[in-house]
Amino acid sequence: MISENAKIGKNVKMGNDIHIGEYCVIEDNVTLESHSYIDSNTIIRKNVHLGKGAFVGSHCIIGEYLMDFCVDRREQGYSLIIGDDALIRSGTVIYTDSEIGRGFQTGHNVTVREKSQIGNYVSIGTLSDVQGNCQIGNYVRIHSNVFIAPLTKIDNFVWIYPHVVLTNDPTPPSTQFAGVRVHLFAVIASGAIIMPGLNIGQDSLVSAGAVVTHPVEAYTAVAGNPARPICDIRKIKNHFSGEQAYPWRNEFKRYMPWIDSNFASWCNNLSFDEKVAYGLDTVDLGFMLEGEE
Amino acid sequence: MISENAKIGKNVKMGNDIHIGEYCVIEDNVTLESHSYIDSNTIIRKNVHLGKGAFVGSHCIIGEYLMDFCVDRREQGYSLIIGDDALIRSGTVIYTDSEIGRGFQTGHNVTVREKSQIGNYVSIGTLSDVQGNCQIGNYVRIHSNVFIAPLTKIDNFVWIYPHVVLTNDPTPPSTQFAGVRVHLFAVIASGAIIMPGLNIGQDSLVSAGAVVTHPVEAYTAVAGNPARPICDIRKIKNHFSGEQAYPWRNEFKRYMPWIDSNFASWCNNLSFDEKVAYGLDTVDLGFMLEGEE
Amino acid sequence: MISENAKIGKNVKMGNDIHIGEYCVIEDNVTLESHSYIDSNTIIRKNVHLGKGAFVGSHCIIGEYLMDFCVDRREQGYSLIIGDDALIRSGTVIYTDSEIGRGFQTGHNVTVREKSQIGNYVSIGTLSDVQGNCQIGNYVRIHSNVFIAPLTKIDNFVWIYPHVVLTNDPTPPSTQFAGVRVHLFAVIASGAIIMPGLNIGQDSLVSAGAVVTHPVEAYTAVAGNPARPICDIRKIKNHFSGEQAYPWRNEFKRYMPWIDSNFASWCNNLSFDEKVAYGLDTVDLGFMLEGEE
Repeated sequence: MISENAKIGKNVKMGNDIHIGEYCVIEDNVTLESHSYIDSNTIIRKNVHLGKGAFVGSHCIIGEYLMDFCVDRREQGYSLIIGDDALIRSGTVIYTDSEIGRGFQTGHNVTVREKSQIGNYVSIGTLSDVQGNCQIGNYVRIHSNVFIAPLTKIDNFVWIYPHVVLTNDPTPPSTQFAGVRVHLFAVIASGAIIMPGLNIGQDSLVSAGAVVTHPVEAYTAVAGNPARPICDIRKIKNHFSGEQAYPWRNEFKRYMPWIDSNFASWCNNLSFDEKVAYGLDTVDLGFMLEGEE
Repeated sequence: MISENAKIGKNVKMGNDIHIGEYCVIEDNVTLESHSYIDSNTIIRKNVHLGKGAFVGSHCIIGEYLMDFCVDRREQGYSLIIGDDALIRSGTVIYTDSEIGRGFQTGHNVTVREKSQIGNYVSIGTLSDVQGNCQIGNYVRIHSNVFIAPLTKIDNFVWIYPHVVLTNDPTPPSTQFAGVRVHLFAVIASGAIIMPGLNIGQDSLVSAGAVVTHPVEAYTAVAGNPARPICDIRKIKNHFSGEQAYPWRNEFKRYMPWIDSNFASWCNNLSFDEKVAYGLDTVDLGFMLEGEE
Repeated sequence: MISENAKIGKNVKMGNDIHIGEYCVIEDNVTLESHSYIDSNTIIRKNVHLGKGAFVGSHCIIGEYLMDFCVDRREQGYSLIIGDDALIRSGTVIYTDSEIGRGFQTGHNVTVREKSQIGNYVSIGTLSDVQGNCQIGNYVRIHSNVFIAPLTKIDNFVWIYPHVVLTNDPTPPSTQFAGVRVHLFAVIASGAIIMPGLNIGQDSLVSAGAVVTHPVEAYTAVAGNPARPICDIRKIKNHFSGEQAYPWRNEFKRYMPWIDSNFASWCNNLSFDEKVAYGLDTVDLGFMLEGEE
């Protein structure tokens, strides 16, 4: 159902089963695929392509203007593509000139700026601020109020918890930036701050409140201000069960592509091309050598 | 005055002296009691009951959908009850399926998710993110940009300052959570991070920037990363007067039910049932034994 | 172009070339100077004066009510003045009863409360929360999600990075506050927390994640929790070039009034009155004695 109180632009293409709420503004050249729900008071700007089954909450701006429009008020013809099954909660602002994969989710009042390359099944929590010009892989889970500076690169299967800050300016203010690189399966816990340009290694664990000033090695847990290595993650026990808690991929399935099996089986069934696509072709996952699963 | 540009649903019950601003959406089965002011561009969803004298700023969503609606777009009949004299500032999102007491206040762009049980005279500051499935007592003052994870339990008369993070996952990511428990009169200062499942003791003081990895004893101040006990709170002097600053309840009245008298007198005049209701029946408040006031 | 779906009050004065988007509310006695662009769903309240060339994004509230209106719903006749060339991004809330200079910029969902005195060419990033009753100088750059307590005083040419917290209550909760004072050219890096009433000295550098419990001397870098002096800022090298990185004013021009020359030349060409206006008349800038530039 399309509200009579919505303002629909020219050349808007809609699939079937579309809901557009009260006081929405759908600008020209927008494509809404089938089964999409656009809640009241939301704005979808020019040249946005939203995949099937999208849910967009109220007070969102999808395809927000870049700075150039604010200055000269001329449309530049940028576009924004968001894959199928997006769930974008209220107040979220996604700039144009980005590309975002399938199954994208946001909390409330999230900001995603331009030139963000975001993979499939990524979740970005309430208030998080992705400053654009960055790469985020697949199955990355970013919780509330995380700050992601430009030039950040986040691999697949990374978890970032509330109030984490990924910086990029080694000597602020300056004009040369160095983004943080977060490797496969890494976990950055609440309130941690990562200094510019650092590698956060595969399967590492940055503890809550850590201020990370040196690269973090693979399979290493760090903590403190400044952060120091505290142990191998494989020594950390689950608080409740007393069993080995990390690598988490062997214990945890929710949201992950191995939800119906386990990581080792899922991984062993991947084709080589799939392994490459997931970034799993060249890494030491431990369990294959050691039979962990 | 009800704007002609507002969209009012079916079976909306309104008391007298109601203001509904421009471009509001009031959905079906909403109850607005007398003397309520709903500012422009705000959405009140189905089955919301707002008590007398409510002020709801612009761009709010009161009674926001849970995840299930985003997935299957079917109303489940949840409801939200907010007590009298609420002051909900602009951009606040309160999910349905919660219950909130009298005198509730929020800053701007606050999020309160489902299954939050919130007492009377609670204030939640700008940008704070209450993740739901939690309990917050009476006279709790939460400042700006605080993160409250599910399963948190906060007693009466607790103060939480800006950018505090209360976590709940001991080995992230996992599937078993342990909420923080904050006891009566505790104060958590700016930017502190509390590890999952910890007790923050009655009348304790967590200093700004503390990363709390162990339980905090009653009447104890902690500081640092990791946080360590630094002194008994009763040794801390007021910066200006040089007098004993804590327990704060003996010195501070604003917003509190003892505003017209003092804590000791107010407490002594409570009936046993009232003491039970405030959680004051079984605790050692010091002053009664020692004659402090 | 003024949308037919916008609600325009009485005695609204508009210059030429004004755009007002869909579902906007422009209340009585608003002045919009020439070449202003007000995007859809935005509210401009009574007695707001917006200078020439303003761009105001969607879902903003400019001239927001103070607490007194929320309580008694009577207009008090406050006003808000914002200088020319403002760029106010979506979701920003600026209270009435403040004065803001030229070239003001905000990110998304910024809050600026009442009695904020803000100079020229100030930028305040996404989600930042300026709690009002504070002074912010000229050419101050505040990044995302910074908390600025009442009574804060920030001099000209100061940089504050994401998630910094400037506090004001020495023994929370209390009724006597002490604001932080940040001096000329100081830099406060991401996630730092500054205790109440402290001086952050001219040209000092507070490192990311520092918890500052003592005053910071001029030209001093501090780090840690609690923060301790680590070196003279003039010893810090640029990460990429290996050259001296601080004082940053000798190396960095973007956004600054010396953008077309360099700091030393620009400063030498100022009249005495201009030096006074910039606060540069009584400070030791080093380079004049040492010939640095």
